[in-house]
Amino acid sequence: MNIITISREFGSGGRELGKRLAGLLGFAYYDREILTTLAHNAALDETYVETALETGWLARIPLTFGASFTYLPSTPHDPAHLLREENKLLRTLAQRGDCVIIGRNADLILQSMEPFKIFVYADLEAKLARCRAHAAKEEPVDDATLKRKIRQLDKQRANHHALLSAHAWGDKAGYHLCVNTTGRPIKTLSDQVAHYARAWFAARG
Amino acid sequence: MNIITISREFGSGGRELGKRLAGLLGFAYYDREILTTLAHNAALDETYVETALETGWLARIPLTFGASFTYLPSTPHDPAHLLREENKLLRTLAQRGDCVIIGRNADLILQSMEPFKIFVYADLEAKLARCRAHAAKEEPVDDATLKRKIRQLDKQRANHHALLSAHAWGDKAGYHLCVNTTGRPIKTLSDQVAHYARAWFAARG
Repeated sequence: MNIITISREFGSGGRELGKRLAGLLGFAYYDREILTTLAHNAALDETYVETALETGWLARIPLTFGASFTYLPSTPHDPAHLLREENKLLRTLAQRGDCVIIGRNADLILQSMEPFKIFVYADLEAKLARCRAHAAKEEPVDDATLKRKIRQLDKQRANHHALLSAHAWGDKAGYHLCVNTTGRPIKTLSDQVAHYARAWFAARG
Repeated sequence: MNIITISREFGSGGRELGKRLAGLLGFAYYDREILTTLAHNAALDETYVETALETGWLARIPLTFGASFTYLPSTPHDPAHLLREENKLLRTLAQRGDCVIIGRNADLILQSMEPFKIFVYADLEAKLARCRAHAAKEEPVDDATLKRKIRQLDKQRANHHALLSAHAWGDKAGYHLCVNTTGRPIKTLSDQVAHYARAWFAARG
């Protein structure tokens, strides 16, 4: 099975790159679908599932602290339960066939399936420009707010990652290829990475 | 002018990758030639030039400290003079035509010529294996010595780099593409990177 995992800095265009990559290679593409499926299966709100998965590990400590029973039975809305479900779901999806998976620590969770691990990043200015362009469609956001959002989301990703890996999130040692998108059209970069990935899987046989 | 700069961890295979890349793209390849030319022009020993360029900045401080004239006239063996000569030589070579340049902080020195900046790295185990294979041809070296050598050379590169850039040496933010060579044949990787580079320069027009 040929699996590509895309880890990315917020605003770097990693999601778009992953989506195009999947299209170019004819691979399945998994992103929000993962959260939607998890939420559906647990009959929970998608936003709740997202927050629980991303900050649940930390939130869980004060939540259970002081409870009469420290080891509460696992419930569908328990972050640890959701994480186990997410891991199961990622494995199931990966076993179905070639795919590109965005985020969700799939690079670590699917390690045994030897994914081709890509990290996508960019300069802060480039990320701000991309965020501005996206935000403009809905409502304008000032740079200070965007910077805070970028920092906050990347920090969340880093924290979550740190629970599963010896390498820090974004540390190039943890990836096979790190792609800087600053000043480059994602479309062109996707073509380049698609060719790289094809050769990668071909060499593996 | 299409310029590729290769920065690399010692033992990662970056030099071989750069050499193959130049061959595949039909670019000129500059590596030791730079030191040889500098040494020849200054009528100095090549090893002296290498050491002066790599550790000269630090060595220079105690050398001039305490001298009656703090601002000594520049002499051919003065590290600062050699660095200026190196900068000039790099520019001259880059202006001659498409090329791949290994190390020498060419990524920073030629910044204004917009080089495609690649960083090549690998896991410590992979680097040790590569060093062992190379060393075997001459005389076997134990792992502790190799590890020390890798650390020492990479530190020298980092120190030298720090004098010229706000980004730390090896920090992915300072490069366009970071390539992990762990467990991959350099030949295959070179093909992949060559294609990537071709598309890169083509997109730039």
